[in-house]
Amino acid sequence: MKLGEIGKRLKCQLRGDPEVEIHGVAGIDEAGPDQLTFVSNPKYYSHIPKTRAGAIILSPEAAETAIPTLLSSNPYLTFAYAIELFYSPPAPIPGIHPTATIAETAVLGENYSIGPNVVIGEGVKLGDNAVLYAGVTIYPYATIGDNFTAHSGACIREYSRIGNNVILQNGAVIGSDGFGFAPREDGTYHKIVQSGIVVLEDDVEIGANACVDRATVGETRIGRGTKIDNLVQIGHGSQVGKDTVLAAQVGLAGSTRVGNRVMLGGQVGAAGHLTIGDGVIATAQTGIARSVEAGQTISGSPEMQTSLWKKNYILMHEFPELVKTIRRLEKEVKELRNER
Amino acid sequence: MKLGEIGKRLKCQLRGDPEVEIHGVAGIDEAGPDQLTFVSNPKYYSHIPKTRAGAIILSPEAAETAIPTLLSSNPYLTFAYAIELFYSPPAPIPGIHPTATIAETAVLGENYSIGPNVVIGEGVKLGDNAVLYAGVTIYPYATIGDNFTAHSGACIREYSRIGNNVILQNGAVIGSDGFGFAPREDGTYHKIVQSGIVVLEDDVEIGANACVDRATVGETRIGRGTKIDNLVQIGHGSQVGKDTVLAAQVGLAGSTRVGNRVMLGGQVGAAGHLTIGDGVIATAQTGIARSVEAGQTISGSPEMQTSLWKKNYILMHEFPELVKTIRRLEKEVKELRNER
Amino acid sequence: MKLGEIGKRLKCQLRGDPEVEIHGVAGIDEAGPDQLTFVSNPKYYSHIPKTRAGAIILSPEAAETAIPTLLSSNPYLTFAYAIELFYSPPAPIPGIHPTATIAETAVLGENYSIGPNVVIGEGVKLGDNAVLYAGVTIYPYATIGDNFTAHSGACIREYSRIGNNVILQNGAVIGSDGFGFAPREDGTYHKIVQSGIVVLEDDVEIGANACVDRATVGETRIGRGTKIDNLVQIGHGSQVGKDTVLAAQVGLAGSTRVGNRVMLGGQVGAAGHLTIGDGVIATAQTGIARSVEAGQTISGSPEMQTSLWKKNYILMHEFPELVKTIRRLEKEVKELRNER
Repeated sequence: MKLGEIGKRLKCQLRGDPEVEIHGVAGIDEAGPDQLTFVSNPKYYSHIPKTRAGAIILSPEAAETAIPTLLSSNPYLTFAYAIELFYSPPAPIPGIHPTATIAETAVLGENYSIGPNVVIGEGVKLGDNAVLYAGVTIYPYATIGDNFTAHSGACIREYSRIGNNVILQNGAVIGSDGFGFAPREDGTYHKIVQSGIVVLEDDVEIGANACVDRATVGETRIGRGTKIDNLVQIGHGSQVGKDTVLAAQVGLAGSTRVGNRVMLGGQVGAAGHLTIGDGVIATAQTGIARSVEAGQTISGSPEMQTSLWKKNYILMHEFPELVKTIRRLEKEVKELRNER
Repeated sequence: MKLGEIGKRLKCQLRGDPEVEIHGVAGIDEAGPDQLTFVSNPKYYSHIPKTRAGAIILSPEAAETAIPTLLSSNPYLTFAYAIELFYSPPAPIPGIHPTATIAETAVLGENYSIGPNVVIGEGVKLGDNAVLYAGVTIYPYATIGDNFTAHSGACIREYSRIGNNVILQNGAVIGSDGFGFAPREDGTYHKIVQSGIVVLEDDVEIGANACVDRATVGETRIGRGTKIDNLVQIGHGSQVGKDTVLAAQVGLAGSTRVGNRVMLGGQVGAAGHLTIGDGVIATAQTGIARSVEAGQTISGSPEMQTSLWKKNYILMHEFPELVKTIRRLEKEVKELRNER
Repeated sequence: MKLGEIGKRLKCQLRGDPEVEIHGVAGIDEAGPDQLTFVSNPKYYSHIPKTRAGAIILSPEAAETAIPTLLSSNPYLTFAYAIELFYSPPAPIPGIHPTATIAETAVLGENYSIGPNVVIGEGVKLGDNAVLYAGVTIYPYATIGDNFTAHSGACIREYSRIGNNVILQNGAVIGSDGFGFAPREDGTYHKIVQSGIVVLEDDVEIGANACVDRATVGETRIGRGTKIDNLVQIGHGSQVGKDTVLAAQVGLAGSTRVGNRVMLGGQVGAAGHLTIGDGVIATAQTGIARSVEAGQTISGSPEMQTSLWKKNYILMHEFPELVKTIRRLEKEVKELRNER
């Protein structure tokens, strides 16, 4: 596709030759002469002179370059659209595969792709344009909106309520039993029936092998537009806000309240019965043991302000020397005091 | 159901109006006038005056309240029983689904529910009242006791031995190969055949997408009544005691010995070839690098006494100031010494 | 089997009675009189006098013992071979199970075992000697080499490229969508189509419920001979070298470059867009936030030299006392200065 045509489709102003032939997209360091690349973060501008890319997507604020350039106020988003010009995954096969098992009382929408060995239980309601890959299991009475995609091995437990445009990656589990056990007098445990549900609002994506537990009573809720990465654990009764991003291997203990536009880095853990305010950012491996006010940036286990944590980290490199200094000072001060 | 009737069924003394109509159960903050709630931990007693609940389960030690009250020496356990009065999950469908694949040499007990696409291998023995949801796979020669429940996608590998009343959540893996590789002279690895097994004793529950690896030789064993949450990793040859609780995303490296009534918080990791004594409590994200004596409460990575860890955490907030103080003292003491 | 025969098969010199009858292998502490054991690490030599084993594999450097001994320059590797003399897992059933769904355009090699409910998509190429257990799903256009083993529930997404002798444990996910979302002006996210692939080179093993994400553009690559344990997350675009070992629950954020012969302990996390040099060792729970030069041994979160981290850990036990000392010194120095 010619760069001029790409610019038109992406609605970008073009600086340079519209006749450059582009056959795909690639990262700044990997792109070749027939590929389109981008730089969004100014700290990577230094890579531009070295790129072999045939064209680049840049913000109008970036310095001009000899490479033909598509101008965008949001180069990363424009790059995302550019990928869609050159690639689409294999189309799902329409209809119902003969090996699927669908309960008579299940209600399907229009225009579906239901793959081999899919199981849909009693009373399930499924919206339009559903794509269920092989082996997806939907337990009884789950209700699911339009444009649902579930990859192979994903399962949705009884009574789950799923909105529109939700995507489940392979092996994701929605509505597994919350981890609740009441101790008996003799030290053994009685399993607490988990009578609540999971609600996934519109535009949620859940990563591969991630787990969202059903509530003991009431609901576990993931808010509109929130994105959850692979191997994340959402404990029962947690409430996650809208447009929040949970990176891989995050764990929320249970009854954890997470606000809107929060970003939790990889392997972050949060204790139960606490509140993480809107816009909080926690760097990777943070352990959140207390409620956190909106807008904070936190790190460490347990958590502290990231600025403090960074200072401490640098100073910890001197810690053994500091201890020696303290010991020496102790001795010297004692001498001085004895000399009085 | 009238509160008087609920009290009878739960064997609780009632304080207040037996005619209150209750339609369900809920948490203290969410319960409405037709719902029953509870408070177990005295630190939540302050929520009682604000609740809208129609009735409450309380310990006789709690202060009297105007809300009709069911008295219980174990309010949490009584609440667990109360949930069962109002909710039961959809009943499993009896019999064998026609899409299931069952080896001729497999022996089934009585009264089973075997769902779509279940696979049961050669020589498997399954006790009475088994409920196998869609897509459960049992490899050859596994033996399983009575009242077994396995949710969709769970799999049990060859020769595993599972007791009575065991529950596997969706995607749980019992008996995957332990992670064992012998380095060759040239730096490549030879896979060590994992010839051992996994034993799950009675009353064990394993969470969604959790993994219990088979031993290299001998067995990996999970003791009676132990509860393991989602996404937990049990390395090969580990021995976990009875009535122990492993929260989500815990990892035991291998040949790790964990005692009885141990509680490991979320994301705790324990190295291999060490012993964690009975009753040990490790708070979330603890990294256990050494054996821990019975009864200890530990935190941090690597672990230390929780009391020390808490002190250090508070003091770390002053660390940059402390370092400045040391630097200043160093200078001042030097001056004083020069003045001698 | 007689010990003399075992020695011949393992190509080991025998010290002691060749007539000892051996029926299996076991660890040093568990082995009985009819079992063969081994000690590799000199720190376990102290267990030798207490073992009940009928025979032992030892390095020629180890002190002589009364127990009949097979001499090996690599006792651990020899033990691995010994296991194979006494145990092999149930043989896979040859052929294609009638419940499998195989696209007409898929090309199979020779000599396969394709289990119940396996799904093989359009255009898939599969080498010789494939063993696909129940419910394995291969999406369209994946290509896979010879001697492939995939355990139940594993799935391989579209266009993945897998070499020879690769093993996937149960529930492993190869090629799930990378976690990429471009923020729109209004704070919502646009899903970035993940157009790249996953490449697993020869001799790779991927653990149970581990996830390897496809790249946004280009590829995610796991190098020849690398072994990845259960519940590991490999973020999109990561490049892992050869003969590297990633223990359970490790997470690589994305575009993470890991060298050859690296060892990351359990629950280690590494940020994106950084390089971990050849031969780096990171102990369990390390948080790698910066690039690490080849050959380093690191610990802590964020990472530092393990030697420093160990010193700091020991000194942290004195931290509250050190702070008191600083406070006292401050007061004493003030007094001394006032007395001038």
